[in-house]
Amino acid sequence: LLYLVRSASRVPWGMETDVARELGERQRAKTAELRKSGICLHHWRAAAQHLSYAVYDVASNSELHDLLKSLPLYPYSTAEVVPLVTPS
Amino acid sequence: LLYLVRSASRVPWGMETDVARELGERQRAKTAELRKSGICLHHWRAAAQHLSYAVYDVASNSELHDLLKSLPLYPYSTAEVVPLVTPS
Amino acid sequence: LLYLVRSASRVPWGMETDVARELGERQRAKTAELRKSGICLHHWRAAAQHLSYAVYDVASNSELHDLLKSLPLYPYSTAEVVPLVTPS
Amino acid sequence: LLYLVRSASRVPWGMETDVARELGERQRAKTAELRKSGICLHHWRAAAQHLSYAVYDVASNSELHDLLKSLPLYPYSTAEVVPLVTPS
Amino acid sequence: LLYLVRSASRVPWGMETDVARELGERQRAKTAELRKSGICLHHWRAAAQHLSYAVYDVASNSELHDLLKSLPLYPYSTAEVVPLVTPS
Amino acid sequence: LLYLVRSASRVPWGMETDVARELGERQRAKTAELRKSGICLHHWRAAAQHLSYAVYDVASNSELHDLLKSLPLYPYSTAEVVPLVTPS
Amino acid sequence: LLYLVRSASRVPWGMETDVARELGERQRAKTAELRKSGICLHHWRAAAQHLSYAVYDVASNSELHDLLKSLPLYPYSTAEVVPLVTPS
Amino acid sequence: LLYLVRSASRVPWGMETDVARELGERQRAKTAELRKSGICLHHWRAAAQHLSYAVYDVASNSELHDLLKSLPLYPYSTAEVVPLVTPS
Amino acid sequence: LLYLVRSASRVPWGMETDVARELGERQRAKTAELRKSGICLHHWRAAAQHLSYAVYDVASNSELHDLLKSLPLYPYSTAEVVPLVTPS
Amino acid sequence: LLYLVRSASRVPWGMETDVARELGERQRAKTAELRKSGICLHHWRAAAQHLSYAVYDVASNSELHDLLKSLPLYPYSTAEVVPLVTPS
Repeated sequence: LLYLVRSASRVPWGMETDVARELGERQRAKTAELRKSGICLHHWRAAAQHLSYAVYDVASNSELHDLLKSLPLYPYSTAEVVPLVTPS
Repeated sequence: LLYLVRSASRVPWGMETDVARELGERQRAKTAELRKSGICLHHWRAAAQHLSYAVYDVASNSELHDLLKSLPLYPYSTAEVVPLVTPS
Repeated sequence: LLYLVRSASRVPWGMETDVARELGERQRAKTAELRKSGICLHHWRAAAQHLSYAVYDVASNSELHDLLKSLPLYPYSTAEVVPLVTPS
Repeated sequence: LLYLVRSASRVPWGMETDVARELGERQRAKTAELRKSGICLHHWRAAAQHLSYAVYDVASNSELHDLLKSLPLYPYSTAEVVPLVTPS
Repeated sequence: LLYLVRSASRVPWGMETDVARELGERQRAKTAELRKSGICLHHWRAAAQHLSYAVYDVASNSELHDLLKSLPLYPYSTAEVVPLVTPS
Repeated sequence: LLYLVRSASRVPWGMETDVARELGERQRAKTAELRKSGICLHHWRAAAQHLSYAVYDVASNSELHDLLKSLPLYPYSTAEVVPLVTPS
Repeated sequence: LLYLVRSASRVPWGMETDVARELGERQRAKTAELRKSGICLHHWRAAAQHLSYAVYDVASNSELHDLLKSLPLYPYSTAEVVPLVTPS
Repeated sequence: LLYLVRSASRVPWGMETDVARELGERQRAKTAELRKSGICLHHWRAAAQHLSYAVYDVASNSELHDLLKSLPLYPYSTAEVVPLVTPS
Repeated sequence: LLYLVRSASRVPWGMETDVARELGERQRAKTAELRKSGICLHHWRAAAQHLSYAVYDVASNSELHDLLKSLPLYPYSTAEVVPLVTPS
Repeated sequence: LLYLVRSASRVPWGMETDVARELGERQRAKTAELRKSGICLHHWRAAAQHLSYAVYDVASNSELHDLLKSLPLYPYSTAEVVPLVTPS
C-alpha cells in the first residue's frame, strides 16, 4: 500500500541549539534507515521551504502510523496523509 | 483497513429532474448494498448539510478507490479520505 | 443522538515532560471509560496525524458538552462537532 | 435542544425569474410557519449579505434534518449547523 | 440595533492558574450582568468547542465596542461581529 | 452609524452584453445618488481588482440592508460588512 | 495616491503591562499626528474586533512604507494594503 | 511606482473556440505593447499553472487601474495587486 | 530537475459524454507516453478523490510548462507545482 | 532558471534586541551579495507588510535550496516558491 506524506516540521523557537541539532541528526538517521529498508520509497524536500514529501510502502494504516510516530520530529510536525493508487 | 470518507455531493443545477432523481435512487441502492456486504461499516449524514460520512473496511487503497468510483454520484462529489487506526 | 467529534490535540511546547505524560495517561483512561459505558461508540486516530475522530451517543447537546469538557486534554484541543443522522 | 443554523442561499443564475420568485415566497411562508410553531426560536438576516442565522429548538438531530430539508431553498443553500448549550 | 457576536476565547498557556480562574469568574459575572440589563439578549456556547455566540441589543456601534472591550477576556478573544436585521 | 462595505461584484458569464451594460449604468446612477445624499460618505475601487469599498452613514442596520438590497448589482455581489467606530 | 490599510495589532502575551501601555500611548500619539498632517485621511476601528482601517494619501509606495514602519505597533501588526482609485 | 500583479485568468467553459482564441491573441498583443513601452517591466508565467506575474512601473494607482482594465482578459481574471518598494 | 505536480481535473458538467470520454482517453495515452519516455518518473491517483500526483524529471521550468500544457485535460486542471530537491 | 520567492519573515517575540538586530544586518549583507553576483535578479518589499518578493536565476532546484537555506532569517521565514517561464 502506497501513501504520500507531506509534512511540515519546525523545531520550536526557544529549544536549545544542542537539543535541536541532536533531534535533526536522529531524524536524518531514522529516515536513512527507512529508505534502506525499502519502507520509504521516495523522500524529497520542497526547495527552499520547511516542507518534505515522502512515499511509503507499508502493509497497513497502523504500520504507517507506528512508523511516523517513531520519527524524532513527529511532535513538531504537521502531516497530510494521502492514500495512493497506481493508475492501470 | 479502515478509512473515513467525508463527501459532499451536489447534483449540478441544470440537470433534468428525472435524471437527478434516478441518480439519487441508484446511489441509495448501491450504498445499501455496500452496507449489507460489510464493506461500509458506518454511514451517516451531517444533519441539515449536503455532507455525508462513511467508514469503509477494505483490503487496500485500490479497493477503496474502485469502490467509490463505482458510486453513481462520484462525478458530482468531493471527497476527503482519512486512513484510520484503532487506538490500542 | 449521534455526534461526530473531530479533534486535534497538542500539548504546548514547554510543558514539562512529566506533566504531559500524566495528562496523556489520564486522557486514555477517561476515553477507555467512555468507550466501555457505551457513550463513545467509536474512536479512531487519523494515521500519522495529530487528529482523532469519535462518535458519541448522548441524550442532548449539554451532555456532549459536559462530557468533552471533562477530558484532560480539552484545554489543548480544537474540536469540530457534527450532529449526525442515520439515512433511512 | 438548540441549534444555530447559519445558511447562505443563492438562487442559481439562469433560473427563470418566475420560478425564483415563487421559490422565495414559498421559503418565506414555510419560515413564518416554523416561527409560529415555536420550532424556530429566532430568525435574522445578516445586514446586506446573502446570509441568514436561525436558532431552532427541536427534539433530535433527525428532526432538525427533516425540517431543514423541507425548506424550498434547501437545494440552493450551504448551511453550517452548531449545537448550542446554555451557559449555567 | 441587533448584532451577533461569535467569539473564540483562550487564556494563553503559561498564565498562572489563579489568574486564569479569576479572569473566568469576572467574565461570567460581567456576562450575567449584561444579560440581566437586557443589553445581551441571548448567550450560547457551541457544544464542546471553545466558542460562544451572543446577540446584543445596543443603540450604536460604539456602544457595542465599549461594551465588548470591557469584558475581562477581551484581550484573549477573537470576535466576528455581524449586524442583524429582522426579516419582515 | 458608520459601516465599511467591501463588495466583490461580477456579472455572470452568459448574461447578454446589453443587459450587463444596462445593469452597470443603473448601478453607477444609484451609487452617485447615494453619494450626493450623504448616505454614502466614501466610495473607492481597489485598483485593478473587481472589488470596491464604501463607507455608509445610516441610522440603523435595517437602513443599510434596504439600501444595499436596492442596488442593481446586489444579486451578483458578495459583501463583507464591518461596523465602524471612530477612535476617540 | 490613496491606500486602504487594514491592520490587526496585538501586543504579545508576556509583554510587561507597563511596556504595553506605553506602546499603546505612543501609537495613539503618532496616529493623531498623521491625522492632523492630512496624511491619514480616515481612521476607524472595527467595532469589538482587534482591527483597524485607515486611508492614507501619500506621494508614493515608499512614503507609505516608511510611514507605517515608523508606527510603534508595526512589529506586532499584520497589514493588508489596497491601492485605491476614485470612481469617475 | 512599482506594483506586482499576480493574475489568474480562465476563459469560461462554453465560450466558443474562435472567440477564446481571438481573446488570447488580443491579450498577447496588448501585453507585448506594454512591455515595449516600458510600463510593464517584467512578465512571467508560473510554470504549468494558469497564473501570471507582472511588475508595472506607473505614475499612480489610477494609471495601473486603467491599464489593467484595458486588457482583453480582464473580465475573466482575478488579480492580486501588491505595491512594492525597493530596499535601500 | 525534479518537480512534484499535484493536479485536480474535472471535465465541466455540460460537456457531451462522447467528447469527455475521448478527452480522458487522449489524456491516458499522453500520460503513458510520458511515463515510458522517462520524463514522468512517478504517477499516482489519490484514492477516491479527483486528484493526481506526478513527479517529472525535466531540464528546465520551460520544459515542464510546455509538457503540461500539451496534456488534453490541461484546460480543465488546477495544478500546484513544487520544485524538489533530494536530501543528501 | 527563474524562480519567484515570496517570503514572510518575523523574528520571534522574545528574541533579544541585539540578536535580532545582528540577524537583520547579516540578512541585508547576504542579500546585497546575492544581488551583486547576479543570482538574485530582483528584490522588492511589499509596502507596509512583513513580506518580500525576489526573483532568482539559478542552475537548479538544489542551488536555489542551498542558497535560501544559507540566509540568516531562513529559520524564521515562510516561503512560497514559484518556478517561472518567460512568455514567448
